[in-house]
Amino acid sequence: MPTPLKLYLAGPEVFLPDARAILDAKADLTRVYGFEPICPGDLTIPTAPTKHQFGLNISEVDEGFMNRADGIIANLTPFRGIAADPGTVFELGYMCGAGKIVACYTNVAETHYQRTLAWYGGAISRDAEGRMRGPDGHSLEDFDMIENLMLHGGVARRGGPVRVHAADPERLWTDFISFEQCLKALAERV
Amino acid sequence: MPTPLKLYLAGPEVFLPDARAILDAKADLTRVYGFEPICPGDLTIPTAPTKHQFGLNISEVDEGFMNRADGIIANLTPFRGIAADPGTVFELGYMCGAGKIVACYTNVAETHYQRTLAWYGGAISRDAEGRMRGPDGHSLEDFDMIENLMLHGGVARRGGPVRVHAADPERLWTDFISFEQCLKALAERV
Repeated sequence: MPTPLKLYLAGPEVFLPDARAILDAKADLTRVYGFEPICPGDLTIPTAPTKHQFGLNISEVDEGFMNRADGIIANLTPFRGIAADPGTVFELGYMCGAGKIVACYTNVAETHYQRTLAWYGGAISRDAEGRMRGPDGHSLEDFDMIENLMLHGGVARRGGPVRVHAADPERLWTDFISFEQCLKALAERV
Repeated sequence: MPTPLKLYLAGPEVFLPDARAILDAKADLTRVYGFEPICPGDLTIPTAPTKHQFGLNISEVDEGFMNRADGIIANLTPFRGIAADPGTVFELGYMCGAGKIVACYTNVAETHYQRTLAWYGGAISRDAEGRMRGPDGHSLEDFDMIENLMLHGGVARRGGPVRVHAADPERLWTDFISFEQCLKALAERV
């Protein structure tokens, strides 16, 4: 039997009160599709004399996880604002830069553009060149993408699945439909 | 004379009304320190039949820029919320994953923790394990870092400069003090 591909399961789940249960459920589902899951938070972090050094230790452990992994599935569901969790975004970029298998999903159906429009309360105008801008003058991108084009484009251009599912807000972090769609797409590719 | 190292200048400046002028000023400063600047937006993007495809084209061009670069200086100043621009974060992760030279800075002095605390309006409590959590139950990290630990840690662990400067809010995008500190630190290393 071939060694199963290892997938790093990136997402802001680590911050949730029931992080362990959610990560375990995602790990179980990953195994169902023939992959070996690697989750942030799976290893004990070496203690440190300062909280700053402890943070560096977590960074080192999580990068080590990514280095061992063959690919990543990144949960880009908006977290504390209109964008994905920065840690998850960094990890998706890291795996693209390292040439690994990449996939991403979101449980919010609104596009990057729609969320930015809502951030500005709809108060958008066109500049002299026809670019849409918010009241602060910052331009809006509308590329029919779930996130900033570097994220969505980075995955799509590598042939990785980008899956969207409008989850019930009550089940934003426990609805695994789009996550499972990523697993299914990756399993069909292997 | 040796070929100058190429630095990719990542940041949300591309969205500003005066993007070109700001990017040009950063590029000029980069040359002063002996580096060759590579800026997003420096190349004409191939036209495309759909806006989605045009977004993919930009992604391809910007990744090509990063692949040509020896390193990155990422502007992690918060953008449209409490976190750095996701495109910039992706690019910082990409360059870490690709083993390139990395540096980052912010023009906002508040730490990641302080900004998250403000996001919750200070309404933080401790759970049974002593972890700080917001009213939504999501945990807060306090690692004395300018951003999520994967970003700050990813740069610091590679020996790259992480520079902070409390810019006047009116000059948030035109104050180059911390950017220049990154250039200086990289020039001393080379």
